[in-house]
Amino acid sequence: MTTLHPFDQALALQHSDLRSGEFTGATSPAYWNMVGPFGGATAALALQAVLKHPDLLGEPVALTVNFAAAIEAGAFEIQALPVRTNRSTQHWTVSICQNGQVNTTATVFTALRRDTWGERDAAPPEVPRPSDVKLMRIGPEGVAWLDGYEMRPIVGSPPSVWDESGTDSESQLWLRESPPRPLDFASLAAMSDVFFPRVWLRRARRVPAGTVSITTYFHADAGLLAAHGTGYLLARARAQRFFNGYFDQSAQLWTESGNLLATSNQIVYYKE
Amino acid sequence: MTTLHPFDQALALQHSDLRSGEFTGATSPAYWNMVGPFGGATAALALQAVLKHPDLLGEPVALTVNFAAAIEAGAFEIQALPVRTNRSTQHWTVSICQNGQVNTTATVFTALRRDTWGERDAAPPEVPRPSDVKLMRIGPEGVAWLDGYEMRPIVGSPPSVWDESGTDSESQLWLRESPPRPLDFASLAAMSDVFFPRVWLRRARRVPAGTVSITTYFHADAGLLAAHGTGYLLARARAQRFFNGYFDQSAQLWTESGNLLATSNQIVYYKE
Repeated sequence: MTTLHPFDQALALQHSDLRSGEFTGATSPAYWNMVGPFGGATAALALQAVLKHPDLLGEPVALTVNFAAAIEAGAFEIQALPVRTNRSTQHWTVSICQNGQVNTTATVFTALRRDTWGERDAAPPEVPRPSDVKLMRIGPEGVAWLDGYEMRPIVGSPPSVWDESGTDSESQLWLRESPPRPLDFASLAAMSDVFFPRVWLRRARRVPAGTVSITTYFHADAGLLAAHGTGYLLARARAQRFFNGYFDQSAQLWTESGNLLATSNQIVYYKE
Repeated sequence: MTTLHPFDQALALQHSDLRSGEFTGATSPAYWNMVGPFGGATAALALQAVLKHPDLLGEPVALTVNFAAAIEAGAFEIQALPVRTNRSTQHWTVSICQNGQVNTTATVFTALRRDTWGERDAAPPEVPRPSDVKLMRIGPEGVAWLDGYEMRPIVGSPPSVWDESGTDSESQLWLRESPPRPLDFASLAAMSDVFFPRVWLRRARRVPAGTVSITTYFHADAGLLAAHGTGYLLARARAQRFFNGYFDQSAQLWTESGNLLATSNQIVYYKE
């Protein structure tokens, strides 16, 4: 008997109407955050509805997910619509509903990639190897979804004392799924959202905060992700601006060999 | 008689159905690019449909625009839908259609902002003042929309020789509308897309390229924008990764006094 990885269980979708791209699913207790699902899991679900659609053309290049309202524990409907299909590209809209109300919207861009010239302009920071960095211990106040990841913080760990002494918003960590799972687009989408709120780090003060919208660009194809397998990702995140209730977060995910697989940005609500 | 600024002419929308948020408009010859409208003008139009909607709550915080297919010169329909309205936030979907086909999709997040703690974590580069930087001369090969902007390139000008000698993807320039026009959310959305393709700079080689999706976060309210008036913006853009047909561009727009008004990211198609 093969047991599905918890992340694959969380991504399980049933076709309710194949032609119209409607699916049903259910929130996963294993990826629960404080008052709703881990946003990365929701982002992965929005992408998964596109990846499971019979009319899919190509592979994901861009994903934007808007967290419009709270998602309750339990069943949801998700609909993926190919609004425009070109020769080698496709544009999608996605919505997640509960009780007839939209709680999440998303847009996805997929494409058949061609081999071209390529280059990396953003170099990864100099960091110690994963085996030389200590595992983050999840305290008793930890939330369920954190158990789904192995995190080895290099700089910018969650403050151990909330004394408002923060000076910087940057975190770097080694990251992979726990238990390990071969990397794919859905897990890359989820891992783009593993960072705790930058405002907590910058202020060393815990204020209510939550992602409103996240956009992830994939700089990889299925072959590259397969080659990465269950290796670690070097994850970096920082904020650029905190202004009247919202801050941005800019993130990168590199392989251990320095290949930049994804860049991601999000806008996050914070209180006070 | 007051003559409308060309940008305001380009943004002119007529309500065709007030209740359903449907508008009609027409592409502007003044903001024409090589084979379609300047993408920044299209992004501004998507935002404008939300700003003109009678049910609007708050001010724009996030805007994602997906360029799904070519826009032809002439009339278009644009529809803005408030898919979820919360106590102090609102989520929108927008689509632009011609001949019954969607060519652009967008999502917009608006919010009533509250005064909170704030900070700038990304400092602007050290640059000379606008008056000390030469105006960019638009050559005869220039496209119409470039006349809508005053650009003073500091580093990363368009290559004068296409000899494949490029080494870096970063541009910095002073920027404002021409003729000057008081800054607002729509013009900030458009100015987030004024950069020529990073792949041209990085390679010093001109290959076909075009924005597929752009996401802009606004770190300002109407009061801050009004205070900025017709001043210059320091605009910076760079790519992080070029991979098999698509590269990302990360951009910032600062005031002359170093206030970061917007951060923007886009994913761009390139050939070869």
